[in-house]
Amino acid sequence: MTEPNPDLLPEGLEDRLPREAAATTRVMRAIQDVMHGHGYDRVLPPMIEFERSLAARMDGINQRRMFRFVDPASLRMMGLRSDHTPQIGRIAGTRLAGAARPLRLCYAGQVLTIKGDALDPARERLQCGAELIGADNVAAASEVVAIAIEALQAAGAQGVSVDFTLPDLVDTLAAKAFPLAADQIEAVRRELDTKDAGGLVDAGGAAYVPLLYATGDFDAAIAKLAAIDAGGALASRIAALRAIAAALGGAARLTLDPSERHGFEYQSWLGFTLYADGVRGALGRGGTYRIAGSGAREQGGEVATGFSLYPDALIGLVAGEEAAPDCVFLPLGHDRDVAARLRSIGWRTVAALSEADTAEALGCSHVLEGDEPVKR
Amino acid sequence: MTEPNPDLLPEGLEDRLPREAAATTRVMRAIQDVMHGHGYDRVLPPMIEFERSLAARMDGINQRRMFRFVDPASLRMMGLRSDHTPQIGRIAGTRLAGAARPLRLCYAGQVLTIKGDALDPARERLQCGAELIGADNVAAASEVVAIAIEALQAAGAQGVSVDFTLPDLVDTLAAKAFPLAADQIEAVRRELDTKDAGGLVDAGGAAYVPLLYATGDFDAAIAKLAAIDAGGALASRIAALRAIAAALGGAARLTLDPSERHGFEYQSWLGFTLYADGVRGALGRGGTYRIAGSGAREQGGEVATGFSLYPDALIGLVAGEEAAPDCVFLPLGHDRDVAARLRSIGWRTVAALSEADTAEALGCSHVLEGDEPVKR
Repeated sequence: MTEPNPDLLPEGLEDRLPREAAATTRVMRAIQDVMHGHGYDRVLPPMIEFERSLAARMDGINQRRMFRFVDPASLRMMGLRSDHTPQIGRIAGTRLAGAARPLRLCYAGQVLTIKGDALDPARERLQCGAELIGADNVAAASEVVAIAIEALQAAGAQGVSVDFTLPDLVDTLAAKAFPLAADQIEAVRRELDTKDAGGLVDAGGAAYVPLLYATGDFDAAIAKLAAIDAGGALASRIAALRAIAAALGGAARLTLDPSERHGFEYQSWLGFTLYADGVRGALGRGGTYRIAGSGAREQGGEVATGFSLYPDALIGLVAGEEAAPDCVFLPLGHDRDVAARLRSIGWRTVAALSEADTAEALGCSHVLEGDEPVKR
Repeated sequence: MTEPNPDLLPEGLEDRLPREAAATTRVMRAIQDVMHGHGYDRVLPPMIEFERSLAARMDGINQRRMFRFVDPASLRMMGLRSDHTPQIGRIAGTRLAGAARPLRLCYAGQVLTIKGDALDPARERLQCGAELIGADNVAAASEVVAIAIEALQAAGAQGVSVDFTLPDLVDTLAAKAFPLAADQIEAVRRELDTKDAGGLVDAGGAAYVPLLYATGDFDAAIAKLAAIDAGGALASRIAALRAIAAALGGAARLTLDPSERHGFEYQSWLGFTLYADGVRGALGRGGTYRIAGSGAREQGGEVATGFSLYPDALIGLVAGEEAAPDCVFLPLGHDRDVAARLRSIGWRTVAALSEADTAEALGCSHVLEGDEPVKR
């Protein structure tokens, strides 16, 4: 076997160089500042923990995507986190089990997976998000969606849109309005996923066909959903969606895809996906759910509402637009107090270390002359 | 084997809960803002990379402290980073090999080791620092030490002190002033480490005994060092140390321990350790060095000067002093525009989600009444 080139990084792993790293810092701070402003307290779980602890709370999340290794100290398997939400659930259910509810927590950091996905080969991604623990009502959902939108906008996203879904829609209709045999439910779900009206009818789900048309622009789609005569089975869901949309008050473009379930395997009554102009694929998703695993306050786990953002694509976009910041070159023998004063009012400074250093070579826009930065 | 409790974290790994996480965010931002202000560009290397890439640049750093595992994609060994500096060296020597020198880079993030140390059992620590690549002169050292001090002070450290050392002191003296046989050099170093005058004499290093007394308060110690008649072999080092101390202009308490080498295995002519009041052990260290591994510009590696801070102990200290921030409770039906305006001027808000929510239960210091936050 030839020696690998020590200069190469493994597939799917990258260095962020200054321009992208600056955009990363700015975007992550902007998102965190919005969550903080709405009363969400950051928690910082470790990058690694026992695989079982992560897996016990990864209901619906693919554990096989985690990097795993033996801990030389405990000889147990550890996992490198691939998602923050099981860790937040663990914290809420253990050390913060006694904290008042609703409990607002947020997080920001890296997650790693052994494989990227079709849209994105990256194996290390940034993830940040907020979890509202102990509440999953309309007010909770309205708050969480609004914060997700505001966070993306604060980070520089343009044309944010939110696509709502009702993850338990088929279960609700099958139980209350359009009965299905147990073995038909999965078939109906599958045909809804592929948007195949003929297939739906063949699967015994003719009553579900109108759902295929209740998609797209929110106002039109919710009207179509409301027109489906399901004997009132959907009334509370429709009222809830309308209340959330009204609370958002035009902050983002809204769409509805009521039977979409991809990525919402562990959500309860509400799910949503976040998009922005110029960004391929989703920037994040969220919804209502129950916290899996031990430490839950109620049978089936404590209720919660939250979102996760994956801002890397947005960072790539805003990094390209970012102008290099102004920067003052400090010649040899400059007045250090003047330089400190400039930094204290927001200037960046770059000091000469020898006669060879010049403002031009070091990319400085200004040069300190006496007490003042002068444009080159 | 009994199943481990999924609520437990492995030894040496911890969650940071809201108070400590808030202090972490504040400290890390303050340190980064100082480095940024002085023209250091952040780079973000990945958490994991090929073990060989990290090891190739870990001259003097213990590779066996890294968590290692097989990458399922490449089937090669990967390592979880235990130190940022080899990664910064790699970036400087590869993708930024063509960037102008001196090149100012900085970093901030987690590092993990399979074992903690005697002073600190933590296996995950925060590390941040700055590297000035392509310069190791007095001006470079003065800048780097000054920024390290300023960063710690901005993060809330009180009574910062800097302990200087001359890592190649014995080599310099042995080559130029007080000759030692090859097999004596290590013995002399060892006796200097243990501060054992008798042992030094026995090891054939009688001429080195005065070094044991040239320690402590900087001005007194440097005078003692200067009094050692080494035929001028130390003159340039002494002049350099005095120039750095003068440039710092009283920003921190300075001490000298010229033969200290623990932790400076890969430094060249200068090393320094950073301390602060109330913090057990060092908060960081730095010095001049040559970047190991490939991609170096000159034979033996490109010169550089830098520091690394490990701010966890400082975070623990300032977290204890931190007051809970003011926070406004927003009753049901509050004016959203008023709440947004309050957040825009720095208030934190916590919105009621049901009649059950109260300002008291949610720990809010204020309640929104009409347009104004009113103290509870």
